[in-house]
Amino acid sequence: MPVSQPSDSNNDTKDQLTLLNNQLGSLQRQAILRKIPIVIIFEGADAAGKGDLINRLLLSLDPRGFKVHAMHSPSEESIYRPYLWRFWTRTPARDRMAIFDRSWYRLLLDDRVNGAISDEQLPKIVEEIKNFEKQLTDDGVVVIKVYLTISEKKQYKRMVQLESNPATSWRVTHKDWEHHKLYDEYRVKSEEMIELTKAKKAPWIRINSSDLKSANLKLLKAVVKRLEAAIKIKLTPKIHKIASQLDWRKDKGEPSPLDQVDLSHTLDREIYKTRSRVLQERLHELEHELYICRRPVVLVFEGWDAAGKGGAIRRLVKGLDPRGYEVIPVAAPNTLELSHHYLWRFWTQFPKGGHIAIYDRSWYGRVTVERLEGYCSKKAWKRAFNEINATEEHWSNCGTIILKFWMHIDKEEQLKRFEAREADPNKKWKITEEDWRNRGKWDNYKIAVDDMINLTDKPNAPWIVVEGNNKPYARVKVLETTVKALEDHL
Amino acid sequence: MPVSQPSDSNNDTKDQLTLLNNQLGSLQRQAILRKIPIVIIFEGADAAGKGDLINRLLLSLDPRGFKVHAMHSPSEESIYRPYLWRFWTRTPARDRMAIFDRSWYRLLLDDRVNGAISDEQLPKIVEEIKNFEKQLTDDGVVVIKVYLTISEKKQYKRMVQLESNPATSWRVTHKDWEHHKLYDEYRVKSEEMIELTKAKKAPWIRINSSDLKSANLKLLKAVVKRLEAAIKIKLTPKIHKIASQLDWRKDKGEPSPLDQVDLSHTLDREIYKTRSRVLQERLHELEHELYICRRPVVLVFEGWDAAGKGGAIRRLVKGLDPRGYEVIPVAAPNTLELSHHYLWRFWTQFPKGGHIAIYDRSWYGRVTVERLEGYCSKKAWKRAFNEINATEEHWSNCGTIILKFWMHIDKEEQLKRFEAREADPNKKWKITEEDWRNRGKWDNYKIAVDDMINLTDKPNAPWIVVEGNNKPYARVKVLETTVKALEDHL
Repeated sequence: MPVSQPSDSNNDTKDQLTLLNNQLGSLQRQAILRKIPIVIIFEGADAAGKGDLINRLLLSLDPRGFKVHAMHSPSEESIYRPYLWRFWTRTPARDRMAIFDRSWYRLLLDDRVNGAISDEQLPKIVEEIKNFEKQLTDDGVVVIKVYLTISEKKQYKRMVQLESNPATSWRVTHKDWEHHKLYDEYRVKSEEMIELTKAKKAPWIRINSSDLKSANLKLLKAVVKRLEAAIKIKLTPKIHKIASQLDWRKDKGEPSPLDQVDLSHTLDREIYKTRSRVLQERLHELEHELYICRRPVVLVFEGWDAAGKGGAIRRLVKGLDPRGYEVIPVAAPNTLELSHHYLWRFWTQFPKGGHIAIYDRSWYGRVTVERLEGYCSKKAWKRAFNEINATEEHWSNCGTIILKFWMHIDKEEQLKRFEAREADPNKKWKITEEDWRNRGKWDNYKIAVDDMINLTDKPNAPWIVVEGNNKPYARVKVLETTVKALEDHL
Repeated sequence: MPVSQPSDSNNDTKDQLTLLNNQLGSLQRQAILRKIPIVIIFEGADAAGKGDLINRLLLSLDPRGFKVHAMHSPSEESIYRPYLWRFWTRTPARDRMAIFDRSWYRLLLDDRVNGAISDEQLPKIVEEIKNFEKQLTDDGVVVIKVYLTISEKKQYKRMVQLESNPATSWRVTHKDWEHHKLYDEYRVKSEEMIELTKAKKAPWIRINSSDLKSANLKLLKAVVKRLEAAIKIKLTPKIHKIASQLDWRKDKGEPSPLDQVDLSHTLDREIYKTRSRVLQERLHELEHELYICRRPVVLVFEGWDAAGKGGAIRRLVKGLDPRGYEVIPVAAPNTLELSHHYLWRFWTQFPKGGHIAIYDRSWYGRVTVERLEGYCSKKAWKRAFNEINATEEHWSNCGTIILKFWMHIDKEEQLKRFEAREADPNKKWKITEEDWRNRGKWDNYKIAVDDMINLTDKPNAPWIVVEGNNKPYARVKVLETTVKALEDHL
């Protein structure tokens, strides 16, 4: 006797729903314990039921574990920064879930339909979005992208229905009706978007939401499936072997940028004084021009201990209006920062257009100190070169002016400065045990720094190696380079 | 032979300046080492040279240690929150200095002159500002308030001068000229402001800035003096004795709120289902009304372990649009939070007008767990009652709707729930060693909770003790109370 197929009765659906909800609640707890961050984005036509389905999804979740972000048009805070800023800064900590009602895909839907993004710009934007998602998934974030479809007829019907009910009429705006008229265009653009941005680790889930109940079931099933898969993945070990951090790119035949530095440059004190005053005044003027055209400026300072980062920064900002710049000292990440992607904390400090952010140490810690001290896996720091390049390229594409200074001295000069500092009671605090320890690893750091410069020196985010043995020379070079770069860009 | 008095020659001034700059640089380093946060605000007439003097002050400082905040008119982010929000969230960490170019005193100057703040509102605002500053100074923040004066004639002269130079003409706006016409009114209001907000620990420094050089000297001297005094204060010990945390307010004759709870209430399951559905639907409607009138809602959940906080929150948000609320789980503070005033992290999470923030545990940790475990000094938690009352009153004055729920069960019910959870593999994770430890301190916690309710139950921020032995009853009570409060306020 053939076993009867399960009927599609109401009761079956209800049982299935209860089961899925329980599974989801349990998976959320497991994800929290295993510190797996989750990002779920919802895109889709107007009146396709995004809000409704988000609500149903959340029913089984612990409200302490998620945050819903309604991503309207960008506010003033966001509009003067690279467009991924407001999404990056909202990426969840390792034990949280972020749900985006509309997302970075606004650019490939609304902005495509209204013409803000042209066909020429399309490939660049697609690449930036794919890079963003890849950086998240490579870092262990589960990215779930939901696209809700609905027929033109059904959309019309729902909007009329919503409008006729006084409690929901506010949900249908003039804009929604405009979009409805453009139904076909939205459909074409959304197909294109889905095709262009499919990714193995961040696939689209397409759901027809004409019937919300079955759409809900389909959504729950898909989310449960993705979370189950994510939880099965082995946890990465917390301790990283550092033995093999250096045997990489050996014999690639690339020159060592640091070996080519001529450290014999000097500058006369008097010339230094006049030059730096003139340059500081010029920079002050440029700061104002910058404000007018609302472009963000990112200046990175890296370098050997005692190479003069602090002194160079001080002379750089001396003439500036302090309301227009910020110096961001970068130390070891705090617990909140550690529970996010390593780039997150730099995104949260990203300057608003018209402002200058000066990073005293930076995201390049990933490929130097984190590489050499084993704070991250070999896989992670090797991946970081591309991640950093992609990030800086995105910033640059969005109008950011980027300069990266490597303050360079030789080993003898460093020793001299260490000893001078230790002898001076006013400067003794500047020298710590760690500085001496790092000095002992000079040759290793040199390999990492050479790799860093070779792999991340880009036309729109160049490295400037500053010959630092002579302080006046170094400081004027930093000032001159900055002034010239701003003049070229403005 | 009489010793000659130092002449007021240029050289003397220069020497004095160099000396002061060096002192200031050294004091900044000491403040960083001793983790003393510094807040300096600049107020004063237009063209009084605020920007100029800030620049001169910063010359001797390490730019990695300070941040300058130009406080223009509030943005959209700020306007829908209590007016101190944008200042509170910008208060510096314990090793940083925050410099405010314009500050919370805008309310007592510009808003007084333009009539946004009336004579009737004045006392309340003054009190809120004084409370704010007191909370900071009590927490060890050095607060320096600078007011720059300038004669009407000199103001006119400087504005004409700035305007005639193409490089600076943009600094003089139409508004500045309007203010200039109101010179006398600004003068009167500023005198009043200084008189009303003088405080021993946060005094005003008045500086006539008609001559910028001497104004600079005067400013540096005053800042050096304040920092020297701050650095002399002994550091508070990090370990707090907890022996005497309870012998306080004994025999005050106050009743114990917890003793008066009748835990015998129950609610039939079926009635519960219907009631909660109706209430959830009503709450959904109210959520929308709330959004329209842009008032923030703060709901606090405190209670015994296993008293049903999580369950009550879940039923409360079940019908809500997730874009309109956020549940904020409050655990032990992270390192960034620890380096700020204990209220800072709650300010940073404060809901925007029209939104609901649900705190699962809250700032009341200060007077419960921190009191009982010795995480802060006795002085600190005793002070906290007033601080919390003042903070909630400020929120309420600015339109915030506040409800605080204490989820109450008796000791036997807790034991039953602990045991039931341990027996259930799906709920075992909810019970930790710490829960059992806390249970052992039940009687001490009861004293702290009674004090908390007695001292912080206010008409505009009431405590609702929820009889929690019967879960349906408790959940409906939370829903009912919230619906009623919103209906009353909207």
